[in-house]
Amino acid sequence: MTERTQRAEATSADGPATEGTRTANANGGRALRPRNWSPMRAVTRRLGADGSQSDQPQAAQRRSAVVDCALYLDGHRQAGDWDYAGALAAARDAESGFVWLGLHEPDLAEMTEIATTYGLHELAVEDAVKARQRPKLERFGEVSFLVLRTARYCEHTELTENSDVVETGQVMLFIGPQFVISVRHGDAGRLTPLREELEARRELLLNGPWAVAYAITDRVVDLYLEVADQLEDDMDVLETEVFDRQTSGRIQRIYQMKRELVEFKRAVMPLQRPLLALTAQMNRDVPKEVRRYFRDVQDHLSRTVEQINSHDDLLNSILQARLAQVTVDQNNDMRKIAAWAAIAAVWTAIAGVYGMNFGFMPELNWTYGYPGVLALMLATSLTLYRWFRRNDWL
Amino acid sequence: MTERTQRAEATSADGPATEGTRTANANGGRALRPRNWSPMRAVTRRLGADGSQSDQPQAAQRRSAVVDCALYLDGHRQAGDWDYAGALAAARDAESGFVWLGLHEPDLAEMTEIATTYGLHELAVEDAVKARQRPKLERFGEVSFLVLRTARYCEHTELTENSDVVETGQVMLFIGPQFVISVRHGDAGRLTPLREELEARRELLLNGPWAVAYAITDRVVDLYLEVADQLEDDMDVLETEVFDRQTSGRIQRIYQMKRELVEFKRAVMPLQRPLLALTAQMNRDVPKEVRRYFRDVQDHLSRTVEQINSHDDLLNSILQARLAQVTVDQNNDMRKIAAWAAIAAVWTAIAGVYGMNFGFMPELNWTYGYPGVLALMLATSLTLYRWFRRNDWL
Amino acid sequence: MTERTQRAEATSADGPATEGTRTANANGGRALRPRNWSPMRAVTRRLGADGSQSDQPQAAQRRSAVVDCALYLDGHRQAGDWDYAGALAAARDAESGFVWLGLHEPDLAEMTEIATTYGLHELAVEDAVKARQRPKLERFGEVSFLVLRTARYCEHTELTENSDVVETGQVMLFIGPQFVISVRHGDAGRLTPLREELEARRELLLNGPWAVAYAITDRVVDLYLEVADQLEDDMDVLETEVFDRQTSGRIQRIYQMKRELVEFKRAVMPLQRPLLALTAQMNRDVPKEVRRYFRDVQDHLSRTVEQINSHDDLLNSILQARLAQVTVDQNNDMRKIAAWAAIAAVWTAIAGVYGMNFGFMPELNWTYGYPGVLALMLATSLTLYRWFRRNDWL
Amino acid sequence: MTERTQRAEATSADGPATEGTRTANANGGRALRPRNWSPMRAVTRRLGADGSQSDQPQAAQRRSAVVDCALYLDGHRQAGDWDYAGALAAARDAESGFVWLGLHEPDLAEMTEIATTYGLHELAVEDAVKARQRPKLERFGEVSFLVLRTARYCEHTELTENSDVVETGQVMLFIGPQFVISVRHGDAGRLTPLREELEARRELLLNGPWAVAYAITDRVVDLYLEVADQLEDDMDVLETEVFDRQTSGRIQRIYQMKRELVEFKRAVMPLQRPLLALTAQMNRDVPKEVRRYFRDVQDHLSRTVEQINSHDDLLNSILQARLAQVTVDQNNDMRKIAAWAAIAAVWTAIAGVYGMNFGFMPELNWTYGYPGVLALMLATSLTLYRWFRRNDWL
Amino acid sequence: MTERTQRAEATSADGPATEGTRTANANGGRALRPRNWSPMRAVTRRLGADGSQSDQPQAAQRRSAVVDCALYLDGHRQAGDWDYAGALAAARDAESGFVWLGLHEPDLAEMTEIATTYGLHELAVEDAVKARQRPKLERFGEVSFLVLRTARYCEHTELTENSDVVETGQVMLFIGPQFVISVRHGDAGRLTPLREELEARRELLLNGPWAVAYAITDRVVDLYLEVADQLEDDMDVLETEVFDRQTSGRIQRIYQMKRELVEFKRAVMPLQRPLLALTAQMNRDVPKEVRRYFRDVQDHLSRTVEQINSHDDLLNSILQARLAQVTVDQNNDMRKIAAWAAIAAVWTAIAGVYGMNFGFMPELNWTYGYPGVLALMLATSLTLYRWFRRNDWL
Ligand SMILES: [Mg+2]
Ligand SMILES: [Mg+2]
Ligand SMILES: [Mg+2]
Ligand SMILES: [Mg+2]
Ligand SMILES: [Mg+2]
Ligand SMILES: [Mg+2]
Ligand SMILES: [Mg+2]
Ligand SMILES: [Mg+2]
Ligand SMILES: [Mg+2]
Ligand SMILES: [Mg+2]
Ligand SMILES: [Mg+2]
Ligand SMILES: [Mg+2]
Ligand SMILES: [Mg+2]
Ligand SMILES: [Mg+2]
Ligand SMILES: [Mg+2]
Ligand SMILES: [Mg+2]
Ligand SMILES: [Mg+2]
Ligand SMILES: [Mg+2]
Ligand SMILES: [Mg+2]
Ligand SMILES: [Mg+2]
Ligand SMILES: [Mg+2]
Ligand SMILES: [Mg+2]
Ligand SMILES: [Mg+2]
Ligand SMILES: [Mg+2]
Ligand SMILES: [Mg+2]
Ligand SMILES: [Mg+2]
Ligand SMILES: [Mg+2]
Ligand SMILES: [Mg+2]
Ligand SMILES: [Mg+2]
Ligand SMILES: [Mg+2]
Ligand SMILES: [Mg+2]
Repeated sequence: MTERTQRAEATSADGPATEGTRTANANGGRALRPRNWSPMRAVTRRLGADGSQSDQPQAAQRRSAVVDCALYLDGHRQAGDWDYAGALAAARDAESGFVWLGLHEPDLAEMTEIATTYGLHELAVEDAVKARQRPKLERFGEVSFLVLRTARYCEHTELTENSDVVETGQVMLFIGPQFVISVRHGDAGRLTPLREELEARRELLLNGPWAVAYAITDRVVDLYLEVADQLEDDMDVLETEVFDRQTSGRIQRIYQMKRELVEFKRAVMPLQRPLLALTAQMNRDVPKEVRRYFRDVQDHLSRTVEQINSHDDLLNSILQARLAQVTVDQNNDMRKIAAWAAIAAVWTAIAGVYGMNFGFMPELNWTYGYPGVLALMLATSLTLYRWFRRNDWL
Repeated sequence: MTERTQRAEATSADGPATEGTRTANANGGRALRPRNWSPMRAVTRRLGADGSQSDQPQAAQRRSAVVDCALYLDGHRQAGDWDYAGALAAARDAESGFVWLGLHEPDLAEMTEIATTYGLHELAVEDAVKARQRPKLERFGEVSFLVLRTARYCEHTELTENSDVVETGQVMLFIGPQFVISVRHGDAGRLTPLREELEARRELLLNGPWAVAYAITDRVVDLYLEVADQLEDDMDVLETEVFDRQTSGRIQRIYQMKRELVEFKRAVMPLQRPLLALTAQMNRDVPKEVRRYFRDVQDHLSRTVEQINSHDDLLNSILQARLAQVTVDQNNDMRKIAAWAAIAAVWTAIAGVYGMNFGFMPELNWTYGYPGVLALMLATSLTLYRWFRRNDWL
Repeated sequence: MTERTQRAEATSADGPATEGTRTANANGGRALRPRNWSPMRAVTRRLGADGSQSDQPQAAQRRSAVVDCALYLDGHRQAGDWDYAGALAAARDAESGFVWLGLHEPDLAEMTEIATTYGLHELAVEDAVKARQRPKLERFGEVSFLVLRTARYCEHTELTENSDVVETGQVMLFIGPQFVISVRHGDAGRLTPLREELEARRELLLNGPWAVAYAITDRVVDLYLEVADQLEDDMDVLETEVFDRQTSGRIQRIYQMKRELVEFKRAVMPLQRPLLALTAQMNRDVPKEVRRYFRDVQDHLSRTVEQINSHDDLLNSILQARLAQVTVDQNNDMRKIAAWAAIAAVWTAIAGVYGMNFGFMPELNWTYGYPGVLALMLATSLTLYRWFRRNDWL
Repeated sequence: MTERTQRAEATSADGPATEGTRTANANGGRALRPRNWSPMRAVTRRLGADGSQSDQPQAAQRRSAVVDCALYLDGHRQAGDWDYAGALAAARDAESGFVWLGLHEPDLAEMTEIATTYGLHELAVEDAVKARQRPKLERFGEVSFLVLRTARYCEHTELTENSDVVETGQVMLFIGPQFVISVRHGDAGRLTPLREELEARRELLLNGPWAVAYAITDRVVDLYLEVADQLEDDMDVLETEVFDRQTSGRIQRIYQMKRELVEFKRAVMPLQRPLLALTAQMNRDVPKEVRRYFRDVQDHLSRTVEQINSHDDLLNSILQARLAQVTVDQNNDMRKIAAWAAIAAVWTAIAGVYGMNFGFMPELNWTYGYPGVLALMLATSLTLYRWFRRNDWL
Repeated sequence: MTERTQRAEATSADGPATEGTRTANANGGRALRPRNWSPMRAVTRRLGADGSQSDQPQAAQRRSAVVDCALYLDGHRQAGDWDYAGALAAARDAESGFVWLGLHEPDLAEMTEIATTYGLHELAVEDAVKARQRPKLERFGEVSFLVLRTARYCEHTELTENSDVVETGQVMLFIGPQFVISVRHGDAGRLTPLREELEARRELLLNGPWAVAYAITDRVVDLYLEVADQLEDDMDVLETEVFDRQTSGRIQRIYQMKRELVEFKRAVMPLQRPLLALTAQMNRDVPKEVRRYFRDVQDHLSRTVEQINSHDDLLNSILQARLAQVTVDQNNDMRKIAAWAAIAAVWTAIAGVYGMNFGFMPELNWTYGYPGVLALMLATSLTLYRWFRRNDWL
């Protein structure tokens, strides 16, 4: 539900922005349209690869989406408020510097302007403004485009039937030779604290844009581990519940857990391939030392994947076990019911016998006939009760 | 049912057409026969590869299947009504031009004529007139043959037991150096609006026939995404239903959902391999820029595939969960029944006791015997009722 | 059951034949023994590779297994009755000719003679006389040995519990440079009509022995498609049945369907690897044009494989759905029973009350006491009945 | 159970033997210890690779494990009683000869002596004295070490709940340039008859040690086929039983079948990889002609594997089907019970009515009141009975 | 639960240690922080690769984690108490010697000091102090880092519902050219007895650090085999229980078994890839002879993997079988209940008939009416009882 709503918003948010872009780009038809207007997602060269098409970035005016923009030289953040065009120019002048531009849910218009300045490919730009991409790594010329899905465990006092357990968001990264652009969608995975931590570590920033990419990927995967660990706690609760005898609503919870696990799986699993590419020995883009760090991330991802697979396997077994347990419970209830019914049947049958109207029924005239029969009924009931007790029917 | 009927029609429609072709091609035995006459699907060279065999295309006379035929030079549609033979000749004269011939459910006779003109291989032609092919990519000399399955979500007010949720059709493409032929079967995936959009984008058409192939594939895969999203909505409805307590017909709906998902899966899954081939770096046929666009399509296909797999996994769990839920419901009903039965049994047993005919039963002569027993019965019933309530049996 | 019987016959049929061969081949010990005498399936060179060992083929005498033997030169069948030794000799004299020898369930003796003449390897010969091989492709020097399993859908008026739905047989092919030998077991897949069709198509036969192999494989796979389509019809019937409320015997039918599907699967699946080998670009044996035709067969096989997998998936779901449906039915029945029991319990309880023998029970002396109680009973029953109706218990 | 006991015996049997070896090998510490003393399974060179360490084989004294030892020259068994050291020396003198040494459950002491003589690697020796290895192929210098698991179908008059259906044993082979050593554990797969058959076939023995390896592997796999066929018969019995209505014990049998199938699977599946290695074209050890024969074995193994997979799939379905069938049976029983209960309830309710003590109940005084009510009861019962009959409840 | 607690402890234990390290390493920011402070796990060069950063190891002061440290020259342990820095220096002086440093749950401070001395990479060090890593093999320059998970079977008198069956711990190994460092977490897998065994075997130690790695890996995998064998015993107990008729708690045990198996699987499965790398022919690090020994370990691991897969398959079937068995039990109980209810109903119905108050009921006045009816009731009951007996309802 959350996802679908998000997407709807993204789409509607694109609407007017697209209009704005369309007039601006009237000559080339390169306007980026929302998905349902599609599918002519246009065959154009990289935006701004030639100066003629770049409509003079006016980033200064509306900058809502830019969370932070900074220039890093020799591992140190350069003081001052940089606009993204100026920062890039300065980075190109310096030798070992790079720009880290942080965006939060940019609209298509602003993203297109940035793309024109930084020379990003239209297809990647289109993806970057949509909140619902799958993890992947693509290369457009010198620029790598890495899509990550963030995951966040939703704390809740108890595991109700329709509580959202896992919430997913998105972080996209453009990694160029002298810049890294991070685009975040959703609340999961704020990057500001990360930037502060990173700026305190010069030797990390010396490795250039890919070190930033590593730090963000590492944070995202660490969150996976946390989610996986908390799902494990929920599994423990679920296991305990399943074999209790208060049956209300538990099957629904098992299913809900399954669904959230499937959502989490879809965020985590496709990241394996990009990380394989990033850590491959023949990868020339990523510096050797950073590759080693990515391998550490990959290892943590593998652990998450294994945990998810284990949970999935166990959840299927829990569902099966719950079904069997329910049948056992049903059987126990049936036995209990039948035991009491038997005890009642004894009373009814004996009473029926002495309710018969025969002329000759000697017991009826005995003084202790009635109390005797009552005693008989009680004795039989008790005997049955103890017999059922001993056989675990009661 | 839809599919099977379609195929039957296709077969019967071939019948007379085949006759016509057979007399025309008496010398070479190259006639293309319907499938059940088969399997001698003949070993011949590409039709019309040598001029001697081409029976002078008479496309002008019966042209029902041709939806549109146009010549594109330098990315612009050339004015005028082109017949397909003339358009091809003109494209061959020009350097960078190509023909886009759009067909809708052609019969074998017409398709054979077109094949003769454009030099299409008999095996591909045979496939192109049949509506029931699996997605694939084949090469016959210079001509690539790409088969796509289209999917359409059938809107319906409610999810009844036998409503068709997903409807599939077919689009085939012949991509040659100077032409692209699109053959459509079924209603899903009309191409006319697409052609209009495409003609508004010169830079796309400049990339030649493969750009058209990209645009069509992109549209087809976008429709997959829409179908997958709407299936997700249906899944949500299903999830809600499954844990309600109105049980009529729901298992059938789960199964129906599964069946439609399997149908959709069979349309989507086999397309992965062709797209892998189209985006492979060593692919020489597809221009580099168009390959990049196909990668975007591939990415969307991957998302659809993941969605389908998730749905499949969830559907299996829903079925399991439903089974468990039904058993729980059954148990709850059984308890409810048993609780009421117990209350009734108390009345029957007590009444039975005082219906006995013993001579000495002091209670029978008490003035408040009868109201006292009635009160006892009511009190016991109420106690039981509250006890059952507290234990969730009622 | 059919298969097992066939095999038993094959084994016993080998018995005497083996004896005959053993005396004839006393010196070399190359006698081919039935499987349970085994496992010393002897290490010998190709039979008849040296002239000294060939015991002068006496094919003329007992020829029961030879269905047809013909020599093809330049794509035309040569007139006359050929014995297989003579035909081969003639084919070797001519340049582009080949022999097509058709056999039906040959015994080991005859097959050994033919092997001696044509230079077939003992291991392939051993396989060729046994009806129960898995699809495979092997090469023995210049001779390729292709094993196919044929499948036939058994028409039946209704789907009873133990009707055989799919029947499988066997076709083996020896493809040498100048001959093709087809060995058929079982009724499925008669080759005579195929030969006639083929002889009407010279350009096919011009491609030599492999064209014959293609034509036979194509026919076999086309039969798969037919079987798969008819299984799909049966699935439709099954689906309809499963959600009806007449439960007799249906689970058995689902299982029977599963079993027949598994049989069919075992015939179809292993053929994928041989076809992969036949269509591989580096395959030197098969002419390029015929390879292209084999690719068409491979495509049809892929469709069958996908259909089988879909059916398998659906059958598992049908079984699950049936189980859930049965539980729902059970619950509905239980509710119905309980509802009627409740109505009866009201009568018994009320009657019990007025059957008590208290001295003071004013109602007993009322004039309208009895009809009033009867009316009460009826009214309560009707109220309960309508309440149960409204709650879907009745 | 069988397996575990075997292993325990093997371990205890090793005990004293190890002691003996340890004193003999005091200097090098190369003593082979049983597994639970482990894990220091010692890093040593091949035993006896240098003459200094070989303690003069005293094979003559205790030879219990040696079943047969023979020298083969030019495919003929050399007359005379050979001890294994002498035979090897003679084979090394001759050019094309080899020794076939057959052992049955040797202890570690004897096996170590043999290893010293033949130059076998300690790790392989360690495996050879233990009865519980998985199928594998390893190379230690010039010596190949092939481990096979034998399987035997246990004949039984009926399929009881805990009968052992499949029994597995072990055959290990050391194949050197001039010797083959076969080590058998368990009863399944006696090799003496095989040796006799083989000695009657000179052309087989001419191929050297690998021909012996082929013959043994072939025999082992042929036994797999037999087991698989007999399991298929058991499956047929099981299928028939499952849909009958005598429910006692059948689920246990399905599970028992599953367990035995899993045992069989574990014997068969891992052999695929060794056979792949033995038949690989680049394999230099195995003579080309023998490789071809191994391919035949591989083909039979593939068939067994497919049969096992089919059986596994079917068994899972049988279990599901049985569960559904049991639920159907339960429902049928419940209906039957409910029908009879309804008939009894009619009697109780009507009798209850006329057991009421109202003063004014005209029917009570009718002459035909009593027989009329009896008739009413009977008529209602019959009507109900026929109605239930017609609706399949009875 | 155990795992989570362990991890929590590890984390809190790191806290103060980290503080200590942070002040010591103030200049370089290379401090290793606990995981939840993360994710800036710092980009630094190998610690101590340049002398300038090594803060003079003060290993002498607090050495709690060092279990044993010894220098081995020519396969012999050198007498004396070595501190780890001195031992390494001595090993570097000698040619063929190496240090084996054994640690037990070191904290981050001590581990960092050791890392500085031995030149270990920060990422590996970080992993080494955390108890919850997955099996893997990584290379950092000349140092290989091997992570193993140990498993231990927890003996228990009976298989209760929440007993821990499998307990897992951790062993990490740093293997450099002249040293091997073993880090153990948890109780499973003590290495002291192993060291003693190893020191008794000079020829093993002659192979250098990798021989120690082999010996430890071998011990760990041998423990897997033991665990797998004991799980097999538990499976046997479970199988027996499942088909008994005392149903209390057994489904929970099946599930518990499943969970423990999943835990074991997660320890065992990921080790396959490292062992594949260690035994690969192109592996240059591991000496050829040691590679051969690792192959033996790999073979045992494969057996464990197969056992686990078999158990998993069987456990799923056991759960299914248990569900079916429970349903059968339920049906049997229902029949039993129904049979007794039928017998009681006969008494009630007959008694009801003779409790009717008709004026004309001749039987009521017969002398033997009452005993006759009693006899009828008894006779009917007995007949029913025997009939139910014969039909297996009782
Ligand atoms: Mg949803
Ligand atoms: Mg995209
Ligand atoms: Mg969620
Ligand atoms: Mg991390
Ligand atoms: Mg929680
Ligand atoms: Mg846990
Ligand atoms: Mg790590
Ligand atoms: Mg880390
Ligand atoms: Mg059930
Ligand atoms: Mg549909
Ligand atoms: Mg698209
Ligand atoms: Mg809908
Ligand atoms: Mg797009
Ligand atoms: Mg064979
Ligand atoms: Mg059949
Ligand atoms: Mg065909
Ligand atoms: Mg049919
Ligand atoms: Mg259908
Ligand atoms: Mg085709
Ligand atoms: Mg075809
Ligand atoms: Mg049930
Ligand atoms: Mg067994
Ligand atoms: Mg064999
Ligand atoms: Mg049998
Ligand atoms: Mg054979
Ligand atoms: Mg545990
Ligand atoms: Mg070991
Ligand atoms: Mg135990
Ligand atoms: Mg066992
Ligand atoms: Mg071993
Ligand atoms: Mg070992």
